[in-house]
Amino acid sequence: MPVVAQDADTLEILMLAWMNEEAWRLCLSTGIAHYYSRSRQKLWRKGESSGNEQKIAAIRLDCDSDAIVLLVHQKGGAACHTGHRTCFYREFSDGKMRVCAPKIFDPAHVYGRK
Amino acid sequence: MPVVAQDADTLEILMLAWMNEEAWRLCLSTGIAHYYSRSRQKLWRKGESSGNEQKIAAIRLDCDSDAIVLLVHQKGGAACHTGHRTCFYREFSDGKMRVCAPKIFDPAHVYGRK
Repeated sequence: MPVVAQDADTLEILMLAWMNEEAWRLCLSTGIAHYYSRSRQKLWRKGESSGNEQKIAAIRLDCDSDAIVLLVHQKGGAACHTGHRTCFYREFSDGKMRVCAPKIFDPAHVYGRK
Repeated sequence: MPVVAQDADTLEILMLAWMNEEAWRLCLSTGIAHYYSRSRQKLWRKGESSGNEQKIAAIRLDCDSDAIVLLVHQKGGAACHTGHRTCFYREFSDGKMRVCAPKIFDPAHVYGRK
């Protein structure tokens, strides 16, 4: 099921991720955002590598009960693995992309060079 | 591709829908939100039944280019076919659901009784 993480204070959309039943249960029991990685086919606690966890403030369901919004407090101020505040840091207009969100950290420092 | 429609003024998340290439092209050429309905397997212009169109203010792409945010001006003030301001009108806490968004219109008046 698709999940939108939204900053509980600024209402910025931080990322779109996915949840399976295990991730949903862990969100409820821990209050910390857990997702399911479709590419890696595994459960994933947001921030497990970077430390940038998401504390859940509220959980909302849509009319068809097939999409979720998590209102979260984003630790470290950045949700994206690129270091940008939000994964949606690129805006498309007139056939061009421009960066529309600040870069908060340098991924090389946070994840190390691999 | 999943698409999140967000109110350009209030930053409320209005709905989560899907786009195919045709819907994407129509968004760019018309400036009005078009989606692809997975259940009906057809292209869909938001508001084609209700009149509640979404005028696109900005288009954002995520880091993996596999999710889209549309910042929109929502005609009629409600995005959900239930008449609520947003499809995410239910909040889940302590094992219970409560309604967390106002109802703007009566669906029976907008869509007629079928």
